Amino acid sequence: MINSESTITAISTPMGVGAIAVVRLSGKDAIAICEKVFKASKPGKRLTLQPAYTIHHGVIVDGEKIIDDVLVSLFKSPNSYTGEDLVEISCHGSILIQQQILELLVRNGASLAKPGEFTLRAFLNGKMDLSQAEAIADLIASSSEAARRIAVEQMRGGFSGQLKHLREQLLHFVSLIELELDFGEEDVEFASREELLQLVESIKNQIDKLVESFAHGNVIKNGIPVAIVGKTNVGKSTLLNRLLNEERAIVSEIEGTTRDTIEDVINIKGTLYRFIDTAGLRHTTDTIESLGIERTYKKISLAQIVIVIVDSRNSTEAVVGEIHDIVERLKDNQKAIILINKVDLADAEQVESIKRTLWERFKNIPFIEFSAKHGLNMELLTHEIIKASIVKETEGGNIIITNTRHYESLLKAQENLLRVNEGLRSGIAEDLLATDIRQVIHYIGEITGEITTDEVLGNIFSKFCIGK
Amino acid sequence: MINSESTITAISTPMGVGAIAVVRLSGKDAIAICEKVFKASKPGKRLTLQPAYTIHHGVIVDGEKIIDDVLVSLFKSPNSYTGEDLVEISCHGSILIQQQILELLVRNGASLAKPGEFTLRAFLNGKMDLSQAEAIADLIASSSEAARRIAVEQMRGGFSGQLKHLREQLLHFVSLIELELDFGEEDVEFASREELLQLVESIKNQIDKLVESFAHGNVIKNGIPVAIVGKTNVGKSTLLNRLLNEERAIVSEIEGTTRDTIEDVINIKGTLYRFIDTAGLRHTTDTIESLGIERTYKKISLAQIVIVIVDSRNSTEAVVGEIHDIVERLKDNQKAIILINKVDLADAEQVESIKRTLWERFKNIPFIEFSAKHGLNMELLTHEIIKASIVKETEGGNIIITNTRHYESLLKAQENLLRVNEGLRSGIAEDLLATDIRQVIHYIGEITGEITTDEVLGNIFSKFCIGK
Repeated sequence: MINSESTITAISTPMGVGAIAVVRLSGKDAIAICEKVFKASKPGKRLTLQPAYTIHHGVIVDGEKIIDDVLVSLFKSPNSYTGEDLVEISCHGSILIQQQILELLVRNGASLAKPGEFTLRAFLNGKMDLSQAEAIADLIASSSEAARRIAVEQMRGGFSGQLKHLREQLLHFVSLIELELDFGEEDVEFASREELLQLVESIKNQIDKLVESFAHGNVIKNGIPVAIVGKTNVGKSTLLNRLLNEERAIVSEIEGTTRDTIEDVINIKGTLYRFIDTAGLRHTTDTIESLGIERTYKKISLAQIVIVIVDSRNSTEAVVGEIHDIVERLKDNQKAIILINKVDLADAEQVESIKRTLWERFKNIPFIEFSAKHGLNMELLTHEIIKASIVKETEGGNIIITNTRHYESLLKAQENLLRVNEGLRSGIAEDLLATDIRQVIHYIGEITGEITTDEVLGNIFSKFCIGK
Repeated sequence: MINSESTITAISTPMGVGAIAVVRLSGKDAIAICEKVFKASKPGKRLTLQPAYTIHHGVIVDGEKIIDDVLVSLFKSPNSYTGEDLVEISCHGSILIQQQILELLVRNGASLAKPGEFTLRAFLNGKMDLSQAEAIADLIASSSEAARRIAVEQMRGGFSGQLKHLREQLLHFVSLIELELDFGEEDVEFASREELLQLVESIKNQIDKLVESFAHGNVIKNGIPVAIVGKTNVGKSTLLNRLLNEERAIVSEIEGTTRDTIEDVINIKGTLYRFIDTAGLRHTTDTIESLGIERTYKKISLAQIVIVIVDSRNSTEAVVGEIHDIVERLKDNQKAIILINKVDLADAEQVESIKRTLWERFKNIPFIEFSAKHGLNMELLTHEIIKASIVKETEGGNIIITNTRHYESLLKAQENLLRVNEGLRSGIAEDLLATDIRQVIHYIGEITGEITTDEVLGNIFSKFCIGK
């Protein structure tokens, strides 16, 4: 899969027209290839003779033809992003110029970089571990402050150090146990079972915390799931559109990322919310017991916040019935918000009657007199949404797992640790114990990339943007 | 308008998410402001003490909070793009990070740059003249090879030097003439009228060539005008859509530039074509003499290439009539291409009859058996379009004017030169002669920016992208 002999190139700045764009080259011939197409402003200056971390002004030429005025930045192995010689050409941000320079570099011996190939090389050259490389993709895609913060922490080491330490301790123990095996019948014990048990407990404790943090991390990365629930025409779409419009500036900027259903993710005061489609309720309200409604309730059960929207023109009894059907199924950790919608069209007395009854019947659930159409009390709603989304910060030194791959490896490590624990307590044979510990080491190593396959790498780096 | 005391900042790379993005800072406090939020990887390193043209690795911090890992490039006055101290911060290409860094720099004393403000400062600091600054905007917007080439030439000096030289020669003469005025009655002649006449002839010659080049330059910049003409339902839209689809990749990439009717500009093999809407013909074919049809013919007269599209199922006589009506009005420099459309639906003999008659009647006009619907002979069509668009290269050292502002100034200079010429020949008084020459100098100076107003500058730089 990886041909580290080649020199790769790509446009690293966002697609499109801008003041400047950056074309990157990395590999052993990066500087030599750039030299072939670069003419320095200072006559006779040779790039290959310049020190690292310097910038050079000149033009990119294709034979006699001048393509553009550029600045060339030089980085030398191993002190570069990829760990290889690396050149950044800063040109004018016309798409045509970007493409011409890229094409010229390819004609002069560079290959087009695959998505994430610069970072893949950084990983292969030991500039970072796999979880750090993954954090870079998360960082680039981050669209909320919390997601950015976690990605930066992880990129800068984060739990890599912690995992490395756990792994080394386990490796130490397993090698002692394997040494015992070499002595066969002699029944020696190099590895103190008691110390090992303590270590396993301590590691299990740390891994449990990481595993627990995933629920929170996932919410930070993908948004807090919110369901808007209500009968047909009660105003669900109007509400969603209004929420989207209020935050349009931020949402539209996220377009172009790989998120599939961009229109349903909203950033409210720095926190992402992911709106779950509960359209199913619409068609099945009359056949309460149908499979369809069950499917909808299942979706509602995935939400952390459930906005129940009712029509204030309906009878108090009907409204209370609707709300009851939904909230009786909510789990303890789900928060509901009731919107008494269309108050602009309803009788004031009727609205008062609903409010009074809600107050009596659903004491712990906030309700808001509302008009989705006119945006009445929108601020109250966002306030309640924010209040409902305050999550208990996970303990454990603020390390939060956001990556599903890491989560799955940690679950497997956890499972095998449990087996080690049981094995130790029941005095299992050395070889079986060693195998179980090796499994734990394997799964921890998967996260940081000590253990990896081309398939795993391909999968991870294909999700990167080109040029990184 | 311009506060050059301030330090400005902007995101200089294209909008959106990418591997990396560049935030620029320019002004006397650029390095000091960056220093406030930058923590170098090498402990104790101070940006303000580092030499120009060097790159520094570290993090951008907002108090205790690490925003991102970055590279900082330093440039020092006067050897920078703007002529001021300039810093480029290369960060990860998340929109959130770009915005946070920008916001942080503003909080630390930078102001948000207006569109083109970096280049405006470069102009004001004498790093380039006005026509060079304008070329930079053209270069960034360039979407064809010819447009890029002309913009690069102009940016790198192009006719600036030529105009400067003309202006200096005129200034020399006018000062001699004004010296004569000082001597009043004495009737001295410091400036040889004969030499002046020669100079004026030579300058007029050069300016004439520049003025002439505009027709060509305008075509290069905005596209060769092409009209697709034919009766309703003959397949005009199908043809246009097919042309657009064939080049979709390139056209869609140009989106986001300031071009208004992007869907009608097509890049075929590196040349831009601008399709003129001739929809008017559709409704007026029956009332040949109406004003509407005249308006359509007026539009057709603006095209350099006229694609006449006819239905092969119609009678030979009708087809020839239609073509005749159009081509008899074409000017010498307009090229026609006839498309015998819908041949898939027509009788083969009928098609043969049309072809034979076209061959006899319109010897110099290429015709193509065609099916817009099935894309039959599309390649032949693009081949003919390219053939028809070969323009005689303007003479005059390949300098081509593409900018309407320059063109208008040149026209005025030309007009005043004519007056100088006449004045010289008729022995006009020194003071009137001097005034006319001063006018020529004024208009030449407008192009390069020796003469300028805030309004003109505002107009020019507001068309730039932010960050340049």
